[in-house]
Amino acid sequence: MTTVLYPGSFDPVHNGHVEIVETASQLFDHVIVAAMRNPQKSAGVLTLEEREQVLTETFEHLDNVSITMFSSLVVDLAQEMEADFIVKGLRAVSDFESELQMAQMNKAISGVHTIFLPSASEKSFLASRLINEIARYGGNVSSMVPPPALRVLREKFST
Amino acid sequence: MTTVLYPGSFDPVHNGHVEIVETASQLFDHVIVAAMRNPQKSAGVLTLEEREQVLTETFEHLDNVSITMFSSLVVDLAQEMEADFIVKGLRAVSDFESELQMAQMNKAISGVHTIFLPSASEKSFLASRLINEIARYGGNVSSMVPPPALRVLREKFST
Amino acid sequence: MTTVLYPGSFDPVHNGHVEIVETASQLFDHVIVAAMRNPQKSAGVLTLEEREQVLTETFEHLDNVSITMFSSLVVDLAQEMEADFIVKGLRAVSDFESELQMAQMNKAISGVHTIFLPSASEKSFLASRLINEIARYGGNVSSMVPPPALRVLREKFST
Amino acid sequence: MTTVLYPGSFDPVHNGHVEIVETASQLFDHVIVAAMRNPQKSAGVLTLEEREQVLTETFEHLDNVSITMFSSLVVDLAQEMEADFIVKGLRAVSDFESELQMAQMNKAISGVHTIFLPSASEKSFLASRLINEIARYGGNVSSMVPPPALRVLREKFST
Amino acid sequence: MTTVLYPGSFDPVHNGHVEIVETASQLFDHVIVAAMRNPQKSAGVLTLEEREQVLTETFEHLDNVSITMFSSLVVDLAQEMEADFIVKGLRAVSDFESELQMAQMNKAISGVHTIFLPSASEKSFLASRLINEIARYGGNVSSMVPPPALRVLREKFST
Amino acid sequence: MTTVLYPGSFDPVHNGHVEIVETASQLFDHVIVAAMRNPQKSAGVLTLEEREQVLTETFEHLDNVSITMFSSLVVDLAQEMEADFIVKGLRAVSDFESELQMAQMNKAISGVHTIFLPSASEKSFLASRLINEIARYGGNVSSMVPPPALRVLREKFST
Repeated sequence: MTTVLYPGSFDPVHNGHVEIVETASQLFDHVIVAAMRNPQKSAGVLTLEEREQVLTETFEHLDNVSITMFSSLVVDLAQEMEADFIVKGLRAVSDFESELQMAQMNKAISGVHTIFLPSASEKSFLASRLINEIARYGGNVSSMVPPPALRVLREKFST
Repeated sequence: MTTVLYPGSFDPVHNGHVEIVETASQLFDHVIVAAMRNPQKSAGVLTLEEREQVLTETFEHLDNVSITMFSSLVVDLAQEMEADFIVKGLRAVSDFESELQMAQMNKAISGVHTIFLPSASEKSFLASRLINEIARYGGNVSSMVPPPALRVLREKFST
Repeated sequence: MTTVLYPGSFDPVHNGHVEIVETASQLFDHVIVAAMRNPQKSAGVLTLEEREQVLTETFEHLDNVSITMFSSLVVDLAQEMEADFIVKGLRAVSDFESELQMAQMNKAISGVHTIFLPSASEKSFLASRLINEIARYGGNVSSMVPPPALRVLREKFST
Repeated sequence: MTTVLYPGSFDPVHNGHVEIVETASQLFDHVIVAAMRNPQKSAGVLTLEEREQVLTETFEHLDNVSITMFSSLVVDLAQEMEADFIVKGLRAVSDFESELQMAQMNKAISGVHTIFLPSASEKSFLASRLINEIARYGGNVSSMVPPPALRVLREKFST
Repeated sequence: MTTVLYPGSFDPVHNGHVEIVETASQLFDHVIVAAMRNPQKSAGVLTLEEREQVLTETFEHLDNVSITMFSSLVVDLAQEMEADFIVKGLRAVSDFESELQMAQMNKAISGVHTIFLPSASEKSFLASRLINEIARYGGNVSSMVPPPALRVLREKFST
Repeated sequence: MTTVLYPGSFDPVHNGHVEIVETASQLFDHVIVAAMRNPQKSAGVLTLEEREQVLTETFEHLDNVSITMFSSLVVDLAQEMEADFIVKGLRAVSDFESELQMAQMNKAISGVHTIFLPSASEKSFLASRLINEIARYGGNVSSMVPPPALRVLREKFST
């Protein structure tokens, strides 16, 4: 049985993330989606509780997907969860280099491998930061995020 | 008649920006240069009033160029101004990916297109952030910015 | 009135090209699609006559698009056709650098500008070379090329 | 049980390829290494028989790795072999874009997914083309290829 | 006699930096390693005094390497130190563009040249920011930094 | 005394190359410009004799520059010439990765280092292949190549 870990900020989860989870859910036996609480970064748009709630609703139709929160090194979580490897999405060249660097440092400190799933190109332009900026100004992001994330953004920015 | 919108921070406008505006002014009927007030970003080096003043003086020799300030989504401004499309400069690969991403999100939420003008390569190394850093330490940036921007930087950093 | 030149190999034209022409046709007054006969490159998959035929059928629904063939410098064609500027599509970083280099050399030898239109991301993975390779082995490329190109590829590779 | 397909030219297989196969062999149940006969490309340095022989010897210590040759679309081979997905190595940005494009076209025509394994960075500078060029001039490539490939290169270039 | 200046943040120095200094020390007569105090950036993990101490211990075995701190334009320091040129390491594409931009601005304001030394690829994944993040969570970074840096990180994060 | 080797095809030498040689001639004691005869590549536009003649005339004003031809591994030439290291120009991201790969393989097989000099950005769009293509069609390349190269291109293409 293959268990994979898919870590991220998910602030909020968008349709590019959803696609990666659906693909991983199809290719592997168990997918753990893990939202990271980063004490170094500023608070974020959604609280960690909101992210967990949104992720849970978004993936409740997929039996082999579970949700967790964490505030440790991702490789420590991978070992604790007995994940076989880490899964990341790859959209663009700018993603690629920092992801490769992180994958190699993670391998060096723990032996845990990272594999990459390419984004379907029609999702490759999505980015949580830009989605939040559009939502803040009242723009319509309903084609970019799953319904539970849209509901939270609307509450947040009263749009 | 073709009206184009050229948005940016212009903190301060530099010779790479000037070249894009001059090219757009030659290729299209009307060019609106729009300086964005970004409530998310920190205050900036020039105030919005200084940027407007510098832009106005810099482009007063071009009859078909007008200046505006805005604090909304750039696509909302484009529609309000009845611009046919947005114009952006392209210098380097690192520009390219984030600009392409923004262009595709803007197209998705509003139908407004973005076209790209390449920077002449001798201007492609200019960046407002680095110009401000050099000016702050008393370096000579007179070959990098138009005279009105140079005057404001000198006042600001007493150089 | 703005006339633009869209040069390429079009061996064969695919849906990414179609999208660029449709956008240019909407933004500018007249679009000239020009298929280049490159005496340095090997013969190609479609003959120049087939490319012209396929382009003509593909764009016959767009009144302001015309088709031409050429075997000269693209900037000489632009000047002969009285085009205001050259239009190119931009999909990926690898496109970007060689296109920027060509744009700057073309500007240097003739003064003719090049502007770039971004590909909609769901078309950005299309490439004539790969399409031909798939068609050669009997793969189904009907979602990648317009019907006239599909017909010619099927005749060519008897698929 | 997870079966993966690892296609390539392997002309010759080098230590970067070996590392990908060893990682895949550890992460998945069965790895099929498939050397492609490309009728479009020129003959290559090793014959297809030599590549098969070198691959077989190189991976005979890994029980769950098998070797095959093919001259069809890689997605057709994947389906024929009942592979769950295709595996590719990722070393550099230049790899990344063409690999992503191929992965998306393969997904579009067949539904077969591709996942990417990053190269350990000390192997990331290896390339069969450069190895052949060094060997041709009598340079020492013993740290770059597995022993069976070294033997064939030495016979070929009498070094 | 050739004197070169190698500027950086060194917060902390890691094995990728060490390799660049060792190569420069072998190729040129005198290497000045200069740690920059950046008043714009936030405080950093190591104090400037700690960085100086760590750099001094790390390079005390190299007779032609000296250490300095600075808080001015790097080109002003280069001229004051009578350095023949600036030396920078190059690891990845993302480094490359910003480094090239800085090199061209530095050349424009002062005439001082920058040359680039490529990182050995097994060091190319190291980055001070990620090393600090790993150390903060108690991960083992002993293979990534020289012993004096390791000692300071351990004191800092009590690991 | 520092001796550096600057290898290339120089088919023909252009103003971007000239700038690299002039910078190297200023920074180092002796610069050897070496034109490679590549038996794998097709014949080229200029003969090796023409390249040698053009290089000799182009750099006759620089006392510490000498010209040589070679058909061996560049690292073997570097060792035979007792060069301290190899010098290469860097213009664009696409250059960067293949140059870095070659630098790392050269270091691995011989211990010879490569350093990189950035092109001044106004020269960074020059490429011998495009210059030859423009000259072939009668375009004016006098701003792109030194006079001796221009004379040979004009004879060759009767322009």
